[in-house]
Amino acid sequence: MKNSLAAVAAVAAVAVLACAAPARSADAPQVPYPDAYRDWRHVKTMVIQAGHPLHESFGGIHHVYANRKALDGYRTGKFPDGSVIVLDLLEAPAADSGITEGARKLAGVMHKDARKYATTGGWGYEAFGAGDRNKRMVGANAATACHACHVAQKDHGYVFSTTRD
Amino acid sequence: MKNSLAAVAAVAAVAVLACAAPARSADAPQVPYPDAYRDWRHVKTMVIQAGHPLHESFGGIHHVYANRKALDGYRTGKFPDGSVIVLDLLEAPAADSGITEGARKLAGVMHKDARKYATTGGWGYEAFGAGDRNKRMVGANAATACHACHVAQKDHGYVFSTTRD
Repeated sequence: MKNSLAAVAAVAAVAVLACAAPARSADAPQVPYPDAYRDWRHVKTMVIQAGHPLHESFGGIHHVYANRKALDGYRTGKFPDGSVIVLDLLEAPAADSGITEGARKLAGVMHKDARKYATTGGWGYEAFGAGDRNKRMVGANAATACHACHVAQKDHGYVFSTTRD
Repeated sequence: MKNSLAAVAAVAAVAVLACAAPARSADAPQVPYPDAYRDWRHVKTMVIQAGHPLHESFGGIHHVYANRKALDGYRTGKFPDGSVIVLDLLEAPAADSGITEGARKLAGVMHKDARKYATTGGWGYEAFGAGDRNKRMVGANAATACHACHVAQKDHGYVFSTTRD
């Protein structure tokens, strides 16, 4: 049972942000690029390999980082405005029985602002291609490309990942 | 060439702390347990699989964390006293084309104090079994079990790992 839950959680963690579809809109409220997220708390890591149902969007090794407000949310299940969670996806070259970190594929972001992103559960979603703040991959497509999946996690503030020690 | 260097760096990163041999000594200067290291900067991650030369000691997924002083050292190559680097090694269960994080196998530590650890290049080495501060796995064996390998990295302050963005 524990393993089953762990497996579910593992897949769920990947879906922190299921939103790699390109889009454009001048009207959608923009999600800020998460400056200095590499200094935030490292929440967890997972490797997605070929054959995984999420491989096309999230193949590689990803790390989840959370700012201080988001850490409060992980504890309480209620993420306050200003919570930001980043899914940092890197290539994961495998060689000689080791898997290392390669180039950044994208930096996915969930940014909580109940008013600004009211139509998507209070979360703004974005993904920055190659981690480039100028390469927005989601834009106005957040509702269908991201939030539609996160709705399943409504009881945990629409967040899939959980913390570990 | 770049790939070759990356491969070397990858293996080298694992050897941040090559010291999983049990030992006991009341006289050796003890390395403090690194409180709150999970809040430190996440430097990098690697997965070591069966067949890797370091699998017996470091099989699993490991994360390297560094405190602020150690980050100065990564930049300059000279690690000031008080620098602490942690290699956090977890089980890495693989299932359904995904690799996740399991139980903690050990928390390995390098702690810089030029005077206290003068016989091992100014670094104290320890590994805490299962991350338990009471399960010291290295003790007085640091010179042979850890530092003997780190000597190869003398020009980078005896540290194998390097930072990425």
